[in-house]
Amino acid sequence: MFKVLITTVPFANMNRLPLELLEGASVDYVINPLGRKLIEDELAEMAVDVDVIIAGTEPITKKVMEKAKKLKLISRVGIGLDSVDLVAAKSRGIAVSYTPDAPAPAVAELTIGLLLSLLRSVHVSNTELHKGIWHRHFGRRIPEVTVGIIGAGRIGSRVIRRLSAFGSPRVLVNDINPQTDISPALKLEWVDKETIFKEADVISVHTPLTRQTVDLISDKEIALMKKGVLLINVARGGIINEKALEMGLKSGDIGGAAIDVFNQEPYSGELANIDECILTAHMGSMSLDCRIRMEIEATEEVLRFVMGVPLKSPVPLSEYQIQEEF
Amino acid sequence: MFKVLITTVPFANMNRLPLELLEGASVDYVINPLGRKLIEDELAEMAVDVDVIIAGTEPITKKVMEKAKKLKLISRVGIGLDSVDLVAAKSRGIAVSYTPDAPAPAVAELTIGLLLSLLRSVHVSNTELHKGIWHRHFGRRIPEVTVGIIGAGRIGSRVIRRLSAFGSPRVLVNDINPQTDISPALKLEWVDKETIFKEADVISVHTPLTRQTVDLISDKEIALMKKGVLLINVARGGIINEKALEMGLKSGDIGGAAIDVFNQEPYSGELANIDECILTAHMGSMSLDCRIRMEIEATEEVLRFVMGVPLKSPVPLSEYQIQEEF
Repeated sequence: MFKVLITTVPFANMNRLPLELLEGASVDYVINPLGRKLIEDELAEMAVDVDVIIAGTEPITKKVMEKAKKLKLISRVGIGLDSVDLVAAKSRGIAVSYTPDAPAPAVAELTIGLLLSLLRSVHVSNTELHKGIWHRHFGRRIPEVTVGIIGAGRIGSRVIRRLSAFGSPRVLVNDINPQTDISPALKLEWVDKETIFKEADVISVHTPLTRQTVDLISDKEIALMKKGVLLINVARGGIINEKALEMGLKSGDIGGAAIDVFNQEPYSGELANIDECILTAHMGSMSLDCRIRMEIEATEEVLRFVMGVPLKSPVPLSEYQIQEEF
Repeated sequence: MFKVLITTVPFANMNRLPLELLEGASVDYVINPLGRKLIEDELAEMAVDVDVIIAGTEPITKKVMEKAKKLKLISRVGIGLDSVDLVAAKSRGIAVSYTPDAPAPAVAELTIGLLLSLLRSVHVSNTELHKGIWHRHFGRRIPEVTVGIIGAGRIGSRVIRRLSAFGSPRVLVNDINPQTDISPALKLEWVDKETIFKEADVISVHTPLTRQTVDLISDKEIALMKKGVLLINVARGGIINEKALEMGLKSGDIGGAAIDVFNQEPYSGELANIDECILTAHMGSMSLDCRIRMEIEATEEVLRFVMGVPLKSPVPLSEYQIQEEF
């Protein structure tokens, strides 16, 4: 009997269908009993006799794969692959699939919400009023600012399209593969990252986490930015260096930030002491519809694998190449 | 020499032009020295020898006007007229002007930001993470919910248009004067208020405060709503009854709320103890561009008055009729 380890939590919390699919196929499953993101050793121990992992963002390393001798498929619930050692998986013949499209609308919508909160100091006023402090903060509207988007793939391009409902902000975009047809309503300026660092009032990163994007924004880049710049990271922890962010917020060089993803999750760190920093618990994809779609898609890949049918969304070669290059 | 009392604060904080306009016309002015919204007695005392008030939302009552024997013009910075006794002003020949268009874009944009925060529990997660608690909240995207808009005038109609960038939510609208051409992109359902109370997942009020709209949402209306409904009030305190809101949030009948306006401002009350309630300090119109535009427009009315030129934006007859009817 196939044995599946489901590490991502919550799973099938709002809709039992993914579990029913597994049960219908007589697949044995276990859901991560710790109820939080696993560290490497915990995963290595839990994965020792499983055929498949329905995975979150926990580290599926070479070490884990060495222990998990029966592992044949990693089905990622989500898009990011920084947590999976694709090179090690390939060399062991472990297939990897993912759900690249499902989370995008939810992540893009959260991004706009965070952008509006930052621009109007909603989080700061909310914290103050809950302490009995009344202060009317000035803010800016979207069409008054220059927005910088780094990474204009599935999520970044959706963020850009949603911006167009708010008038015509100046939008600076950087991507390794510029597409010129993202938004008919907005005139985009395709620029290098340095231009974004220097000219944007708000910068949101929407890249994968790779060796090229680690510390994409750190001390050096922050030093180039406008004083009071606003930063958003709903992509992956580490793309904006956490220590540099903390220092920039404390000095006032960074006016505010909204951070949904962290080097280590669950997060507990110094940013929690900074009121100007909105913190959310890796909730980008956590809308009911997107989350359910991701879980069902990842589970269907498992069923295809069990039945010997080709996977629908195997990780493309380009993703392997990104990791192989280093 | 004309004497102007500027009660609304902050004033000319980010742009000195309004004060320069007054100085250029040799008009004498005083800015509210208390730096917060005045109560009736304070205003009556300060207004005793002034010709003009450049007014915020403090109560300009019959009693105030009886003391302010020289008062000839009330120039409101903003759109709401609930704070001005128009009937008393008319009987004393005091002109009243306002700036109805300037705040709308800023208020509409804040509304969308608050809506997105409520739908994704950004405020709750932010408060939790600042206390070291990591919990991934499920949320909903705009196209997944039914949005109810009560009041589709300058602000409500802009909220509706901005919603269209997020897909096609079901939008229920109520207004005393339904206009059918608000949004080409969205199919609106014009319904009675009871339908909105019963069927909407999120309800945002965008009416003026009048005797008809006081307690528009109170215990009886909340009892009709879906459990966990989300409520937004960026219009005027009192349209949603504060005590009923507090009770609804505490019982869980209301899942979350975002409140920018209060019965008494500065606000300090029980809502400050409820994490599910986003509180902001009457910041709807507080974007730089809108605020500056409002201040300049209100100041220009004063200059017109001083020069004996007709006002550009006197309060229309319909506003007097609303107050005269009761």
